[in-house]
Parts: sequence; structure tokens; C-alpha cells
Amino acid sequence: MPRLKKKLRSSKIGLPPGALVHLGEIKTPAPLLSLIDFSPDSFAEHELLDLAALDALPRGPGVRWLNIHGVHDGALLSAIGERFGLHPLVIEDILNTDQRPKVDDFDDYLFIVVHIYDADRERLDVTTDQISLVIGRDFVLTFQERPTGTFAPIRQRLRAEKSPMRRVGSDYLAYSMLDSIVDSYFTVIERFSESAEDLEEEILNNPQTKTLQQIHELKRHVMRLRRTLWPLRETLTTLYHGQSDFFRPETLLYLRDVYDHTVHVLESLEDQRDLLTGLLDIYLTTVSNRVNVEVRLLTVVATLFMPATLISGIFGMNFHTMPWLDQPNGFWQTLALMAGVAISMTLVFWNRRLLR
Amino acid sequence: MPRLKKKLRSSKIGLPPGALVHLGEIKTPAPLLSLIDFSPDSFAEHELLDLAALDALPRGPGVRWLNIHGVHDGALLSAIGERFGLHPLVIEDILNTDQRPKVDDFDDYLFIVVHIYDADRERLDVTTDQISLVIGRDFVLTFQERPTGTFAPIRQRLRAEKSPMRRVGSDYLAYSMLDSIVDSYFTVIERFSESAEDLEEEILNNPQTKTLQQIHELKRHVMRLRRTLWPLRETLTTLYHGQSDFFRPETLLYLRDVYDHTVHVLESLEDQRDLLTGLLDIYLTTVSNRVNVEVRLLTVVATLFMPATLISGIFGMNFHTMPWLDQPNGFWQTLALMAGVAISMTLVFWNRRLLR
Amino acid sequence: MPRLKKKLRSSKIGLPPGALVHLGEIKTPAPLLSLIDFSPDSFAEHELLDLAALDALPRGPGVRWLNIHGVHDGALLSAIGERFGLHPLVIEDILNTDQRPKVDDFDDYLFIVVHIYDADRERLDVTTDQISLVIGRDFVLTFQERPTGTFAPIRQRLRAEKSPMRRVGSDYLAYSMLDSIVDSYFTVIERFSESAEDLEEEILNNPQTKTLQQIHELKRHVMRLRRTLWPLRETLTTLYHGQSDFFRPETLLYLRDVYDHTVHVLESLEDQRDLLTGLLDIYLTTVSNRVNVEVRLLTVVATLFMPATLISGIFGMNFHTMPWLDQPNGFWQTLALMAGVAISMTLVFWNRRLLR
Amino acid sequence: MPRLKKKLRSSKIGLPPGALVHLGEIKTPAPLLSLIDFSPDSFAEHELLDLAALDALPRGPGVRWLNIHGVHDGALLSAIGERFGLHPLVIEDILNTDQRPKVDDFDDYLFIVVHIYDADRERLDVTTDQISLVIGRDFVLTFQERPTGTFAPIRQRLRAEKSPMRRVGSDYLAYSMLDSIVDSYFTVIERFSESAEDLEEEILNNPQTKTLQQIHELKRHVMRLRRTLWPLRETLTTLYHGQSDFFRPETLLYLRDVYDHTVHVLESLEDQRDLLTGLLDIYLTTVSNRVNVEVRLLTVVATLFMPATLISGIFGMNFHTMPWLDQPNGFWQTLALMAGVAISMTLVFWNRRLLR
Amino acid sequence: MPRLKKKLRSSKIGLPPGALVHLGEIKTPAPLLSLIDFSPDSFAEHELLDLAALDALPRGPGVRWLNIHGVHDGALLSAIGERFGLHPLVIEDILNTDQRPKVDDFDDYLFIVVHIYDADRERLDVTTDQISLVIGRDFVLTFQERPTGTFAPIRQRLRAEKSPMRRVGSDYLAYSMLDSIVDSYFTVIERFSESAEDLEEEILNNPQTKTLQQIHELKRHVMRLRRTLWPLRETLTTLYHGQSDFFRPETLLYLRDVYDHTVHVLESLEDQRDLLTGLLDIYLTTVSNRVNVEVRLLTVVATLFMPATLISGIFGMNFHTMPWLDQPNGFWQTLALMAGVAISMTLVFWNRRLLR
Repeated sequence: MPRLKKKLRSSKIGLPPGALVHLGEIKTPAPLLSLIDFSPDSFAEHELLDLAALDALPRGPGVRWLNIHGVHDGALLSAIGERFGLHPLVIEDILNTDQRPKVDDFDDYLFIVVHIYDADRERLDVTTDQISLVIGRDFVLTFQERPTGTFAPIRQRLRAEKSPMRRVGSDYLAYSMLDSIVDSYFTVIERFSESAEDLEEEILNNPQTKTLQQIHELKRHVMRLRRTLWPLRETLTTLYHGQSDFFRPETLLYLRDVYDHTVHVLESLEDQRDLLTGLLDIYLTTVSNRVNVEVRLLTVVATLFMPATLISGIFGMNFHTMPWLDQPNGFWQTLALMAGVAISMTLVFWNRRLLR
Repeated sequence: MPRLKKKLRSSKIGLPPGALVHLGEIKTPAPLLSLIDFSPDSFAEHELLDLAALDALPRGPGVRWLNIHGVHDGALLSAIGERFGLHPLVIEDILNTDQRPKVDDFDDYLFIVVHIYDADRERLDVTTDQISLVIGRDFVLTFQERPTGTFAPIRQRLRAEKSPMRRVGSDYLAYSMLDSIVDSYFTVIERFSESAEDLEEEILNNPQTKTLQQIHELKRHVMRLRRTLWPLRETLTTLYHGQSDFFRPETLLYLRDVYDHTVHVLESLEDQRDLLTGLLDIYLTTVSNRVNVEVRLLTVVATLFMPATLISGIFGMNFHTMPWLDQPNGFWQTLALMAGVAISMTLVFWNRRLLR
Repeated sequence: MPRLKKKLRSSKIGLPPGALVHLGEIKTPAPLLSLIDFSPDSFAEHELLDLAALDALPRGPGVRWLNIHGVHDGALLSAIGERFGLHPLVIEDILNTDQRPKVDDFDDYLFIVVHIYDADRERLDVTTDQISLVIGRDFVLTFQERPTGTFAPIRQRLRAEKSPMRRVGSDYLAYSMLDSIVDSYFTVIERFSESAEDLEEEILNNPQTKTLQQIHELKRHVMRLRRTLWPLRETLTTLYHGQSDFFRPETLLYLRDVYDHTVHVLESLEDQRDLLTGLLDIYLTTVSNRVNVEVRLLTVVATLFMPATLISGIFGMNFHTMPWLDQPNGFWQTLALMAGVAISMTLVFWNRRLLR
Repeated sequence: MPRLKKKLRSSKIGLPPGALVHLGEIKTPAPLLSLIDFSPDSFAEHELLDLAALDALPRGPGVRWLNIHGVHDGALLSAIGERFGLHPLVIEDILNTDQRPKVDDFDDYLFIVVHIYDADRERLDVTTDQISLVIGRDFVLTFQERPTGTFAPIRQRLRAEKSPMRRVGSDYLAYSMLDSIVDSYFTVIERFSESAEDLEEEILNNPQTKTLQQIHELKRHVMRLRRTLWPLRETLTTLYHGQSDFFRPETLLYLRDVYDHTVHVLESLEDQRDLLTGLLDIYLTTVSNRVNVEVRLLTVVATLFMPATLISGIFGMNFHTMPWLDQPNGFWQTLALMAGVAISMTLVFWNRRLLR
Repeated sequence: MPRLKKKLRSSKIGLPPGALVHLGEIKTPAPLLSLIDFSPDSFAEHELLDLAALDALPRGPGVRWLNIHGVHDGALLSAIGERFGLHPLVIEDILNTDQRPKVDDFDDYLFIVVHIYDADRERLDVTTDQISLVIGRDFVLTFQERPTGTFAPIRQRLRAEKSPMRRVGSDYLAYSMLDSIVDSYFTVIERFSESAEDLEEEILNNPQTKTLQQIHELKRHVMRLRRTLWPLRETLTTLYHGQSDFFRPETLLYLRDVYDHTVHVLESLEDQRDLLTGLLDIYLTTVSNRVNVEVRLLTVVATLFMPATLISGIFGMNFHTMPWLDQPNGFWQTLALMAGVAISMTLVFWNRRLLR
């Protein structure tokens, strides 16, 4: 998928800058618009099929939240942008779903890009969805690549009769969204943690070259996630230090909380990087040790046969005068001698811990 | 336990932000409130069962110190918060016991989160307890997950008749607490140091794969502690540079001392990281060396048998005319020859240091 | 080629500073000048053979874009510099094609140095071309070492009747160029990515010492590219923070976009560095594992022959009284015994996973 | 000793902060006070037994320098502190001899903590002595753990009749002391350098596991020294940037010199760290190479015996019709054949560089 | 030589600070003074034997450049210092030839310390010469440890009749010198590059432990040079940001060029560090691979002899009834069987790539 993304990126070379071409995978067949208008006293929810339906709806007194699932339709996004007075570059950034997390302060609205992640435990794969937020004085636009259920609890709370949520402004709504998104990172961290434990167990029981590759892959996922979350930290610091006035002081305090969670996630990722580095080390030592011990064991066995073979060779010599040869149980004495030597050597090796 | 914590964290997804749900292990069956009121002239100490008992007590002229053991009862904490005018986010941070160290300056009080650690020498395990401090002009609230004895000496000093401790304000009391907490880190460092020495001894005497895992684990503990103490350093710098006026200039000087100790702890941790990295290196070399030397020894032994076996083979050939065969002591001469060759080779190997 | 460059650089020692000597490879036989004059209403394009031709052309009202292919002719560049009022140091920097990316703000014009890269998948080679931009109020000069097609799409758009491109000023034209250049980096990243995949496949199928060298070389290319792009990031930050007034506020917003792309490229490079470090690790383990397993297999085979050889030695001894010797099928019994022991050992080894 | 120190540190837990308890080793049986009063015209030197003797002495017009050897007597230091108006925290820092280098600016005096080091070449051990300086307008107090001779040259120069030293103020005196201390670090660096050379020689001649441990230990000493000198650099920068007015501008210039020397020491330490990292690498390769080459040699020898043993086995077979058996010198021919094969193989191995 | 230097440094312990003692190697038998006076209209050049000769010369209107070769004569330097009004610390820094690059701004003159390097390709050795520049309004003093030819081209250009060089001030003269010095670093980089290529070839053809040591040494040289050039970068930034007014704005532009070159050198050094790290890796793998493959080959050969030896042992058994024994060509059949088995095994090994 990263390869695909880059192909698309380079396929844009030659187009005029600002061209509204979707970069990334198309994850939803057709864009889906859902609108929520709410104020302390009113609440209305609509699923819209096109912008005409939006224009037909009356504008209430409270906050308007328009959520769009599916961001590959440049014409639609462009039309939405015109209705809410967005800069063409904002629309371009929404279309190109490999943006870094960032916050851009336009005079009339704030544009925030963040990501949500989903990790697959079995296949050690991480999928990314870009979520773009546009926060105005009395509206919030959210653009998602596909329905992920991230904002479902917020919708639920808004629907509740006399919900305190309905009394808040667009800034607190935006904060709730950021909070949901950052909280979802903990799930990814957990998945990573579980994968790491699976790998640890595999290393101790049945280490294979595949295991090594998997540890490396997981470590790279951890480091890439850490790298992509780093600018989010900056973004939140920017928001928190209140250079924009979209967040009221009482909401800023809550934003600080989101910042703390992000740092927490980053620290957990560093922890996991250390853990995986350690696993790599243990893997390499375990594998090399096992082969070493096996080769040692085989060498010990080979050494045990040496004296017996020599003795059989000695009594196979053709000297005319040799001891034991004409004794009736010389043969058995010799075998006993061989066994005796082998047993003594085994004991010596056992004591020197070469056989265990 | 880290896994448990994360589970709990992700289990909070979907709840409204600011929901007063305890995140972390419940370490005390029932919360315990202990109150100390002191001024230069008076001293009173009470164990309270509920907040009603607190409301019944008269408010003296001096400093009030309320300590709560057990932080899983959201309702109780919320009630305390209301009585002392705390922000809901403060209560939430007290409930969630995996906060990073931080200091938040509200206008009427200062909110500080720190941790104390306890390291177990045998099991290489580190347990963490969050301690939350709320410092007002004339009161100090301390929230601990369970009784750890960290503040016992402070209590002892306050109890002493005519103690100079009774003359100080809430800022010096808070400083004494921070000092106790940072001092307790030295115990953890000592434990780490002892574990490292145990491991070093084990490496030299009986290195095992388990030892490798233990070094890695200890190293990770050291690095995680270093990472979690780092923000404490920042926190203390923030306090020291006096952006808040809760600490009087004469107390700030003492705060600088706590800062110095924290940096000292951080440097010791870096030292231990270096030591453990070195141990890892020595372990790997020792193990690989031992196996190498053993395989070499076995190969030497095998090589010693080679010429004797060849000689026995030669005299086992069926040529009609062969020397020595008909000599009476040809057999013994041959054995002597074999022994002679083996001894010469042993001497050569000994001189080339292949046998020691 | 880097060696060649350095030779040239040291060959300049002893010359007065500011001497107009070309440093680097000569990539074009003769310099080629192409001129575009455009304004919202007019458009003219000329291929010029010398500066006299330039002087003969009338100066229109709009923006003049002069592109020069081939930068080894000091006299020509010097003459161009005089016509556009450039500082001698600017000419020197254009001549020396191993500059770092930078932006220099002269009062009347802005001087920007950037590079484009071309990576060869087969030979793991990266070639560099320096592009120097001089941005005046109403003119843009571009100096390239050879025709690379980087600006072809811009030319194409300008040629289109009623193109919006014709309405923009010299700042937007410069931005379009920087955008084209940074976009071209994605192609290099893709090439690196493909080379890395080739190497990964080679490691898993047929690892050789050559593969190791290639991974190292690719890694060095990645790190060198990262190092050379780092100052470009700074350069763009400098431009973006608008210390110069050559970029109008509305264009600055677009410049921010170019900055984001550059950071994106840098992060991809870090990702590839991690990937290659992992590949190195996997390579070393794979190779060492393969030899280890082979040596173990051979040792197992050798061990299997030991008991059979001993048995044959035992029945080759010359004792007068020995069992089986006079039995008619003693020989075959002995062979069966040998086979039996070998098969038993094989089974034991198979169970202990020494044979697979 | 580090372990001892920490024990002491944790043994202080529970004491009130600011308790005047000595932390560290007691290195001098009884404290020793030596006083020097000097001005351009006068000079007086006294060895004092207690503070009463100090009070009995008249105070001259010039600079008073009081040096104390032995810092474990809290009562004495406290009394000195009272006489010179020092803050209790200063006395506490003097008593606790594991402070980090620092400078504290009190209004009436400057408090500086530095360390001198002594490295033992044989035992790879570094001992540390804390030196505390209190610089007033017309006095300098120096507190040392034991007599180390660091200030002897300064004393010598002061004793000289008409010494220019007598004309300087307390700031230049303090500078001279810092200069002496930083100069003494060069001796430690030299010792490290010599130890490193000893280890290098050992590696090339007779590498042992002990050598590996020693390199690690030396490296840790180097890194610890670097870490403890780092804050000294900061301290000197703080002094140099003249936030305090204890140093006159003409002395500040000299202080810059001390700063330069400290940076020089830090760079040498980084150099030594690189050297030791390289030594570790060479050690590991040398050891592993030696064993590899030995095992190869032994395998070669074993292989040389193989064909001879086979030949002897062939002529030991009991076929009725076999060549050579009845020839008179068949035995010798066979031996010649064995030798011939062995010599040919030796030549082949020699050519393929397997025997050297 | 570094050891020698440190010896000297520690030999200074005990001397008063500022003592004019030469630290470093004496590289010139007797100091040599050469004077150039130039103005747009005049030019005079003198070789002086002592300062008296200097005093005898009339002072022209233009710039005076006094170059001194040999800096071990404290008395002479001190006398020069007095004539040009230099601070004693400047003289001390000129005498001690292991200063770090730095720039000190005295009110009447600027004091700059830089180094030139010379690398020996064969012996992997780097020699350092300190060059001290004192830049006044109308004079430049240069102090070199010995004649190195670094300034020869500048002298040459000044000698040329009507040279534009004669019209410049002392600041441009100083810039020309810094430019020459930084340009000379490219030669060192080239030498390093050549040494690295020599080592790379050696690794591929005939790797030895000596090669490993050489790579480490070269790497350390690269890192040390990088470390010593780092402060030069800072120094040039300080100069460039024009806190001093010794450089006129038009010269500052040129200084920026020198800065760019220095950064270029630093980046090349980082490149070489990466290359050498890769070489180390390749060396270790190559050596370990070669031994592994050889041991595998020998084990294969040993395994080939096993079945033949067993067969010979079987037909050497003394059973009364054995097949083939009485057949006329049984012996040859057996030999054919041995050869057959060996050839089959060889084919199997060849197919499994164990023999190549």
C-alpha cells in the first residue's frame, strides 16, 4: 500500500500545483454526507445524498456538524469548500490522504489533519485513515476516508435528550473528536503489545528466520507510528498555546489532556521499541546458542567413539604375538574395555557440563 | 500490569471525556482520610471515615493537610474536589493513575502529579504508585493509591512539640513531601544496582539464556524509569523558575535542591544503562567464547586419536611382508609408538595454547 | 563522480577567491538559452544562441523567464549576471555545482540553489543536477546543468491560450518550479524502494557478499540524500517565514505545501533507512544461520557413520574366540545391526530436530 | 564506593531536609583549617586548630583565604557558615560530597562546587574529591575532603615576596583555583590514555575475557567523567556570561580560558570513548578470529589423516585376490602412497591459505 | 604526538596561569618574520631577522601584514604583542598550539585561531598546524608553527603589479586567508577518501586484522576532524552575524561562502564515517564468512571419506562366510563401490551448494 501511494504521488508530477486529484486508495464507493444541527434546545440529524439536499435544509441557531465519508470526489469537496469558504489548498490536502498531522490557522476557520490507525495482530499490518477537521465559529466539518466508527459515541451522546453535549460550542465538539482519535491509539499500542508477546513466545519455543523478519517489521511499524505521531504532538502544542482563538480558555484545559495522552502514547511506543530491540538480541543469541550447543553435543558423541574405534583397530593388527587374542573371553574383555572408556569419558564430559 | 493498565485505558473509549472512572489497579479496599491541622501554636490529627466527619471539624488558623489513601472512589474524590474548589480535570487526573509527572497551575491552587517506585530485587519488578498533590494557600491535599509510608517522617516531625515544621507554610510542607519522594528514588537505584551486581556474578559463574533476558529486562526498567523521571525534571524546573507564586522565594531555594537530586538520580540511571549495556556485551562474548573453547578442546582430542588409529590400521593390513609383525614385542612397540605420537602432539598443542 | 568533484575542488586551491571557474562535470556541449516573456495578454517564446540575441529582443510588460542549460561557460554567466545586476558570488555559486541547497536574499533579487536527483535502479547510482533560481520582481532566471525536463510541464501550461498561469507573478512561477523539483524527489524515493525490494528478495533466495555491499551502498545513498535535503527544509522555512518580500502572502501559503512535501520525503527516507538496517540484520543472520545449519547437518551425517565403523572394527579384530564369526549369516546380521543403529540414531536426531 | 555512597544517601531518608549530616566517606581524621590573609603590602599564614583561634586573629585590609580540609564535621562547618553569613543549604551541600558541579549566586557571595579526580592506572579506578568554593567580595573559603595538593602552587606564589598574586582580588584568586582544578583533569585524561594503550597491547598479545571487562570499565569511567564534567561547562558558561558581578571584566577573560580547557577535556574524553569502542570491536574480532583459525587448522589436520586411514582399511580387507599384497615391498609402497596423498593435500591446503 | 601534547599540558600544572610557556612540538628551529606593506599604490616585502629590523622600517599608509613562522619563542611573541597592543592571553593562546578554533573580539582587534591539517595516505596519520590570525584595522598578524605554503598564493597575488588584491582592506585579506585554509581541508578529505578506497580493496582481496585496525583508525581520524571543525563552523557563524565591525558588509558576503565550504567539508566527513562503518561491517562479514565456508568445505571432505572407510572396515571383518571375498575381482568391485558412493555424495553436496 505504501508503494501504491507513492506511485500515485509520482503520477501527479506534471500536473499544475493545486490540481484537485485524489491521491491514495479509494476506500468508499460513493461519498456519504451526514449532517447534525444542534443547539441547547434543538437537535436534527440528516443523511444527505448530495449538496442540493444540504442547501434545501434551513440553518438553525446552533452548531452544524457535517461529516463526509469518502474523499475521492474532487468536485464534491470543491463544492463543499465553496459553500463554507475554504481555501483550495485545504481541499487539496483533504483529497491527498498522505498528509502529515498539522494545524493550519485561516482567519475564519481552523484546519486540522490527523490520522487513525488500525493494527492487525495476525498479519502485523497497520492501516491508516486520514481524518480532516475544519472548525469554524459555528460549524465543524469532518472528512473521513471511510466509516470507522470513531465518532459514533459522540453522535450517541448528542442524540441523548437534554445531553450536556448540546450546550457546548464547536470548539468542545472538536476537542471531543480529537480525544476520541487519540484514545483510539491505545488500541493500536495494545495490538502491538500483543504481537510482541506472541513473538516473544515464538522466540523461546520455536525461533525461525521468519520470526526475525516479523520482529523487524513490528519494530518498523512502531518507529513509523512514533514518527507520524510526533508532529501531532507539535500540532497539539500549537493549539494549546492558543495562538488561535477558536478554542475558548475552558476548552484549552481539556486540550492539554489530549496532549498528555499523546505524549503517553509516544512513550509507550519508545518502550515497545526498547522491548523489540531486546527481543532481536535474544533471538540472535538463542538461535546461535542452540546451534552451538547442538554442534558441541555432536562433537562430544563423535569423541566418545574415538577410543573404542582405536581399540578395535589395535586388536585387528596382524602381529604374531599379541596379548588376549587367544584367551577365551578376550573378545568380551575388549568390549568391556571399550565400554569402560566410553563411560568414563561420558562422566568426565557430564561433569564439565558438555552434555547438558 | 502494564497490559492491564492499557486494557483499562482502551476500555474507556466511547465514554464522554472527563468521565470519572478509575483507571488502574485498585490497591486499597476502602479509601482512608487522615487530617492534620497545624499552626505554630496548635496541632490536631484525625482519622476520618467520611466527608461528613471532615465537615464537622472546625477550621483552625494554620495549614490543613488532608491525606487520602485509595483513589478508586470517583464519588468521594468528586465531593472532596467540590469542597476545595478543584477543577473536574484535576479529579480525573487523580483517578487515572498512569499520568505523567506534571504541574498544573490553577489560579487558586497548584496541582502536582509525581510517582514513587518500588523495585523488587528478586523478581526484577518495578511497581509504581501515583501521588497527587494539591497545594493551596493554606492547605495541602495528598492522594495516594495505598499507604506507602513515604510521608511518615513528615508526620512524625509535625507531631513533635515545638517542631520548627509547625511554623512553616503550605509551600514548605509541599517541598518536604517532594523531597521525601525524590529521596525514595535512591532506594530504587540501589535495588537496580544490586540486581545488576547479582547478574554480573551470574554471568561470570553460570551464564544462561535466562540471564540475558534478565539483563534486558533490567535495562528496560532503567530506561523506562529514566523516561518517566525526565518530565519530573521539567516539572521542577517549571516550579523553580517561579511562574507560580505558591512557593515563597526562601522555599524556592530548597526546591532547587530537590531538582539537583532528581538530576543526580537521572545521571545514576544513565550510568546503570551503560553498565548493563556492557554486561550484555560481556555475556554474549562469554557464552560464545565458552562454546568455542569447548569445541576447540573436543576437536583437539579427536585429532589426538587420529595418528594412533592410522597406525593400528597400517598394522592391520594384510601384506605378506611387513616389518615388526613377527617380532615378539612388535605389538608393544607399536602401542608405544602410538602413545609417543599422541604425547608429542599433546605437547605441541599445549605449547600453542590449544589445550588451556 | 564524487571523487572527480573533489579533485576539481582541490584543483582550485591557489586561485583567488571568486575566480569564475566551473567546478563539476560538464554535462552539456554548449550552453542553450531559452526565453519566455508572458503577461496576462501576451506570450512569446524564443530559443537564443547568444546574449546579443537577447539584447535585440524588446522587453514586454510582464514576467521574463530566462532558462540556461549548461553552466560551465563562466564568461557567458558573467555577462548574464551583469545584465540582471547579479553579485559575482552568485555567478560563482552557479558555476560550482556542488553547492548545498540555500537561499540568499539580495535586495533586488532572491538566489535559490536546489538539486534534482536521478536514481538508477540497476546500478544503485544517484546522479545530481544543481538548479539555480534567481527571482526578481519581474523576472526569473533558471540555470540547469543539462536539459532534464523538470520544467517542461510549466512551459506547457504557459503556452496554453488563456492559461491562468499567465496571470501570476514571478513568485508563483518560482513556486511552481520548486513544487516540480520537490515532486521529482518522490520518483527517487520510489526507485530506492524498488531497489530495497530487489535486495530483500535476493537476501531470501540467494544471499551473497555482493548483496551486503549493495545494501550498505543503498543505505548510504539514502542517508546522503537525507543529509542533502535537510538544508532544503531549512531553506523553505526561511522562505516561508517571509523574511523576504518576494513572495506575496497568497503564494506563501502554497510554499508551505512544498515544505510539507519535503518533510514527507525526509520521513520516507528515514523509513527506508530503518528498512535497510533491518535488511542488513536479516542478511547477516540468514547467512550465518545457513552455514551453521549445514555444518550441523554434516556433523550429524559424520556421527551416523561412527557406530557402524566401530562395529566393523570390532568384527575385524583377530581374537581366536569371537561370536557370530562362524555363523553362516553372521555377516548379514552384522550389517543389519549397523543399519539398525544408524536408523535408530537417525530417528533420535530427527526427533531432536537436528536433521531439518 | 559508589554503592557506599548510595547507602548513605538512602540512609538519610526520614531525616528532615536540611539536616546537617555528612554523606560520603570520611577521608580525614580531623578537620584542618589554614588561613592566608594577603594584600599588596602584607602576607600572613596560619594553621588553626579551631574557630576560636580564627576569632582571635585580627582582620587585615586585603583578601582572606580560609581553606578547610575535612568536611564531615557538621558543627564546625555550621559555625564557619554563621561567621561568614552562609545559607544553611550551602553548608548542607558542602557536607554532602556527591553534589554535581554547580554555581549558586547568593547576593553576598558565590557558591561553586567542583570536583577533582584521581585515576589509578593499574586498578582502573577513579576517585573523586569534592571541592567547594565560597567567593565573597574580600574572602574566599575552600572546603576539601582531604589534602590533595591542588592549591599548593597558588599558596607558593602568594608566599613569594612582592608576588603579583598579592595584588589581585578574591575573584582572580578564585579563577586561579578553578584553573588549577581544570588543569588537573589533564592528568586523569593522560592516565586513561595510558590505560587504553596498556589494554590495546594486551589485546594484540594476549586477549582474555578480563581484558573485555577492563575495556568496558574504562569506557564507563570515561563516559561518567564526561557526564560529570558536562555541568561544569554549563557552570563556567553561567559565570562567564557575567550574571554575577563577583568577577571583574578583566578576570572574566581569564575565565573564558578555563572554559576552553574544560571543553578541550570533554573533547578528549569523546576521543577516548571512540578509541575504546574501536578496541572492543578489535577485541571481539581478534578472539573470534583466533578460535576460528585454530578450529580450521585442527580440521585440516584431521582431513589429512582421512585418506591414509582409508588406504590402510583397504589393504586390511580380506579379499583373496588383492594386488600388491604378495609383493616384497608392497607395504612400503603403500606407506609411500599414504605419505604422497598427505603431502599433496598439504600442498593444496597451503596454496589455498588454509594452513597459515 | 597527542600523548606528547598532553604530557606537556600536564607539565604546566603548578605554573601561574598566563605563564608564557610553549605547549606543543617545536617545528621550526628559529622564528622567521616576513613583512608585507601594501596599499593600492605601493608594495614592499621584507624578511626580518628580529624585531629591531621591524622597528627600523617606516610605516606606510596601507595594510601591514606580518607573518611569523615558529611560535615557541615566548619572549619574541610577547614583544610583538606589546608593539601591536595584544592582551597577554592572546600571546598565551598563540604559544599553546592545541587551542580549539575560536574567535575573540577585543576592541581594537579580532583574534582568530584555526588549524590546517595534513593527512598521510600511507601511514593514516593526520598532522595539525595551528594558525593564529590577529586582524586589526590596518594590519594582519599571522602566526604559523612552520612554513606550510598555505598563504603562498595570496603573497603571489599581492606581488602582481596593479593587483586588485592591493586595493582591499585588512578584512578582505583575512577572508582570503580563511578561504585558503578551508580550501586546504578538501585535500585532507581527498586523502581520507583514497585511504578508504585502499582499505576497501584490501578487504575484498586480502582482509587481515591489521585492516580492521586501520579502518578503526581512519574512522577515528574522520570523527576527530569533524569534532575539531565543528567549532570552526560556530566561529564563522559568529563572524558572519557581524557582532564585530572588523568585516565590512561586502566582505561578510564572502565570509558566508567560507562558511558554506566548511559545512560542505563537515558533510563529506559524515559521509566518510558512514562509508567506514559500512566497511567495518563488510570486513567482519567477509572474514567470518570465509572461515565458515572453509570449515564447511573441510567437513564435506571429511564426510566424503566416511562411507569408503566403513566399507573397507566391513570387508576387513573376519566372518567365515562373506560375499565377494573369493571372487577374483571382488577387490576392484569394492573399490568401485567406494568410488561410486563418494561420487554420488559429491553430486548431492554439489547440488545443495555445499561445495562451491
